[in-house]
Parts: sequence; structure tokens; C-alpha cells
Amino acid sequence: MSSEDALIRWLRGLQPGSGLDRPGDDAAIVGRGAAARALTTDQQVAGVHLPADLDAAVWARRLLAVNLSDLAAMGAQPCAALLTLAVPPGFALRRFLRAAVAACREAGVALAGGDVARSAHAVTTMTLIGRRPRGGRWIPRRAARPGDRLWLASPVGGSAVGQRLVARGARLTPRGVRWSPADPMPGSLRGLAELAVRRHLAPQPQLDLGRWLGTRPRAAAIDVSDGLAADLRRLCAASGVGAVVDAGAIPIDEAARALSPRLAESALDLALGGGEDYSLLFALPPRAAPPPRFGASAIGRIVEARGVRIERDGHRMRVPGGWDHLRRGRARREP
Amino acid sequence: MSSEDALIRWLRGLQPGSGLDRPGDDAAIVGRGAAARALTTDQQVAGVHLPADLDAAVWARRLLAVNLSDLAAMGAQPCAALLTLAVPPGFALRRFLRAAVAACREAGVALAGGDVARSAHAVTTMTLIGRRPRGGRWIPRRAARPGDRLWLASPVGGSAVGQRLVARGARLTPRGVRWSPADPMPGSLRGLAELAVRRHLAPQPQLDLGRWLGTRPRAAAIDVSDGLAADLRRLCAASGVGAVVDAGAIPIDEAARALSPRLAESALDLALGGGEDYSLLFALPPRAAPPPRFGASAIGRIVEARGVRIERDGHRMRVPGGWDHLRRGRARREP
Repeated sequence: MSSEDALIRWLRGLQPGSGLDRPGDDAAIVGRGAAARALTTDQQVAGVHLPADLDAAVWARRLLAVNLSDLAAMGAQPCAALLTLAVPPGFALRRFLRAAVAACREAGVALAGGDVARSAHAVTTMTLIGRRPRGGRWIPRRAARPGDRLWLASPVGGSAVGQRLVARGARLTPRGVRWSPADPMPGSLRGLAELAVRRHLAPQPQLDLGRWLGTRPRAAAIDVSDGLAADLRRLCAASGVGAVVDAGAIPIDEAARALSPRLAESALDLALGGGEDYSLLFALPPRAAPPPRFGASAIGRIVEARGVRIERDGHRMRVPGGWDHLRRGRARREP
Repeated sequence: MSSEDALIRWLRGLQPGSGLDRPGDDAAIVGRGAAARALTTDQQVAGVHLPADLDAAVWARRLLAVNLSDLAAMGAQPCAALLTLAVPPGFALRRFLRAAVAACREAGVALAGGDVARSAHAVTTMTLIGRRPRGGRWIPRRAARPGDRLWLASPVGGSAVGQRLVARGARLTPRGVRWSPADPMPGSLRGLAELAVRRHLAPQPQLDLGRWLGTRPRAAAIDVSDGLAADLRRLCAASGVGAVVDAGAIPIDEAARALSPRLAESALDLALGGGEDYSLLFALPPRAAPPPRFGASAIGRIVEARGVRIERDGHRMRVPGGWDHLRRGRARREP
């Protein structure tokens, strides 16, 4: 478990009986019956999640997308947003707000309020409110049962590649990706490298799939924000179960396959340990397969024995850790 | 108007018909009928709102208090909170969270979720959700009408004194206020100086008064966060009216009276221009006086002619600006 998980466990102990008392879902449910709402909040910090010099419009859209992904994992329909910005004097505030307003409108979200303050560096926070679609359920993490099949909605590992390319100076601009002179990208790799940067900076929340999952009698879901392995551990811990994953069945982003040698990391490590893919990871009873239009892949099964086991050809593999926002980098790199 | 007001006006223009389209209240109303909720968000930034070395428990309680004050101004009953923290490695996170949980419990608020990330300096954000008490109304800013009496719930100016003392090194600790050796406080002033520091760092949201205002057929309210003059201008602008304030009737905090000579500022300037008092400023029809238990003072009247006029003995006075969180300090100090 990461330090963030440990902190949440500790915090739950402080207030038994509260919403935090249950293993944390991607959003909190506040209120009851028709008045129940899903609430989630997420932040993007300069120098941690995003480079300080990122195009403010890209930044704004990503802030909305990572919050929408939390609602997607709950099966919620986004309604309204609050935006809280702490930004330094040179920050392109109007560009940020114009993009935030446009992105909210596209997502059917009313930007209802917020707060702006100055700060030595940019910390941007969004709170999203979602409702339960008519006929839908909230999707918890804790509903996985032994025998369920485990699904992953879209390829993973691409965002981790993009994150490393951005760390080396690549930037997404309105005219495409600009490569750093210090890390020029060979022409043959540019297409996939650009895709990876987009996967990282412009993730696509899977709201339609979340709504479909909410119509199932039983589904458990989480969005892959901290890495497939780490988020699968969370889903399993919340459900009191374990999982066996077939490494060969994991859809690995083609950018991760193509660029992993250049990054001196294995594509599977990027897929398992790289965070911020914002793909939905979910468990369904064995006969309930998602419609093909969602392009999800069956990657394993839920088992009774606790823990996450990654297998290749029946042999157990090492499981890398995920991104932990409280540490300085990948958890597995810590001493 | 401050740069923050100008930004909000500009933002409203970007999304006509949204909640932002109306002159901003202290919280946004999301949903309809019984499902309607008041949502507010506010942040406390190290080096802007609070000194980076402030006791984390004091910090946590202040973050909750400033958000509760927004709900008080709406007549809302607080229900749930989300907490988003971007904090540097040395930040006393557990002390902060323990205090946040305790303060939320005391206020009847469920701390329902949040997010923690690292950051070069601390930016702490809270979102609060409130419901409408049974039989109550949401209190808007825009309901003031010519002929209304203008009321202020509690003395102002004390927080501004506290802010200046904190800037000079005073710190609130579990054992009282510790004075900086560089700015020793004479014994005769210590009691009031300590009161001012508490007014600034440990404000008291006026939820009971807000609930009472919500039972009135018509009331307009705002909490004094950016200074009495600036927030009165907002109330008037939202209502399309003006106000005449009797300077002699403004309840000025006794700490502001006692310490203003030492700060080389007038007590009235501190009361009118100093921010973060979190006192409710409200307008009521002439015959509707708040019950004496709230200790509110009638400070003037709402008039048809736009603008805010401060009078002493019938003569118009200069009105100082208020705190603007987007600028480097008090608006009136800008060149």
C-alpha cells in the first residue's frame, strides 16, 4: 500500500461511521434517495502533475478530465463544477478559464463557482458534482466477488510514456506537440510519441462506459489513476478479494510498446506501474460482458485469495508499484 | 471594483445562462427542489492567506471556518466537506487532518473525501455542501431594496489587526499567542492583541444568524471576507441599489481601536478596508430587526442611487478598498 492509502486508512480510523469509513470510492456519495449526489475533487499541481509552463488551456481541460474520470468510475452523470485556482502572476488565467468554460459546456457541466488566489506556483483544484442517471446505480469498488471477470477499458502505459516525454521537455500546443531540442524525437516515432503525450495531457474520461456499468445489477469499478497494479490492489482491498491477471491479456498502449526501449523501461512495467491512464478497470459477473463498442479487454479474474497476482504463461511475475502523489515519484523507486 | 470582481464579470460573460450569470452569491445552488444544495469552495494559501509556519491545526480550523461563513451567508445548513491538500514534505499533515476531522464533527459536517498531493508550498482547499434548513430559504445578495436597513452582525477591523500582527511574526499556538521578538507586544495591549490574532486566525462563522435570516420573507446577505466597504459594494451591485452607511454606527473591534495607533492606520480604515472579519452584512425590510441575541448593529440604509456612501455627521467620507486576493495586498496600496 502506498503512503496515500496508509493516510486514508488512518483518516478513516479518525471518523468511524463517516463516508470515509467505507473503503474509498472514486467519489463520495452525499445525501440520500433522489437527493444523493456523487462528489469528487482532484487537483493538478505545477511541477508535480504538470509542468508549470504547460499551455493553460491544456491544463484546464486535463483538470476537468481527471475529475470526470472519477465520476465515470462511479457511474455518475456530471452536473456542476467548482474551480479553485491558486496561481502565480504570469499564469494565463483567462486562457485557462476560457478553456475550462468550453470544456465544461461540452461535458454538460455547469461551472457554478469557485475561488481565485495568487500563489508562488499554480495549484488548480476542481470539485465535480454528479447525479445518478435514471435507472442507474452508483458503482462501488467493493462489489467484486470471486469468479468475476476483470476488465480493462482501454490500453494502458501510454500516459506514463507521455509523462516521461513531457518531463524531457515535450509540450502540447494548439499546433501539435513541440519536442525539446534536448530530446529530439526521430521522425519514425513522432506519431506514436505525440499520441503518448496526448494520452498523458488530454486523457479521455470513459463516462459512457461508466453509465453502462451503472445499469448492471452488480459491477465494481475504479479508474486507473495511480497505475493498473496499484489501482487493482485498491479494488481488491475494498472488495476483500484478490485477482489474477494474465499479463499477455493486458492491452498495452502501442506508444508504450514502441517507445519503451528509448525510455529503458519495459512496456509491461509502464502498463502496470505507470499512472494516469484514466481507463476504467472493472469486475463483472462471468456472464456479463461489456458491449464490444467499449473496446474493453478481459485481463483476468477475481479470486478469493487476497493480493494481486500477475501471471505470464502460468508463472507469477513481480508487480511494480504505482504512482503515489505523496512521494517524490514512482513508489517502486523509493529506497 | 477589484480585479477579482472584474474577472468574475468577464467569466459570467463567457457562459450566459449559467449559475455564474447571476451576480455571484457566497455559494452556488446546484439542483432543484428538495435536491438543491449550496456549494462553496475556498482556499488558504501559504504566504498569501496564512504564514507557512502556522500551526497546522489552526490552519485546518480556519479553512473550515471561512467555508462555513459562505454557507452562513446563504442561510444553508452544512452537511459534507471535501478536502484537497497540496503540501510540502515538512507539512504536519496528520495534525492538520486530525484538527479538520474534529472541527468538521463539531460543525456537523461529514468529511466525505478529498485528495492529497505534494507541492512546493501549501495550498489547502475545501469544498462544502449545504442544504436548505426545513422552512428556510436561500439568502441571495440581490434581494436588497431601497428603504431596507443595513445590518452588520459583529465588530469589524479586528481581523485586519490580527493579520498585521501575524505578518509581524505573532503566532497562535495551543498555549496562546506567541509574539515575535522583533515585534514585542507591551503587556497592556497583549489581551486585545491576542483577541485580534484570534479574530484573524480563528474566525467564528455566523451560522445561527444565517439560518434566522433564511426564515425571513426577504433578506440579502454577504459575509465580510474582503472588507466591509468592498463587500457592501458587492451586495449593492448584485441588488442594483446603493447604500448610505453611518460611520459612527459601524461596530469597530476594540482591538482595532486599541492597536490602530501602533499600526499607524485609522481604526475606521481597518474596519472598512480590512478583510476576513467573516461577519454577516445584511439588508432587511425596515421593520424586520434581528433578535438582540445576535448582537447585530444597524449601520445604514439601502438607497436607490447606486454606489456606497460612508457618512460622518452627514458628511461624505472617502471609502477605502478591500482586500483583493488577486493582487499583492490591499487594493488601496496599489500604485
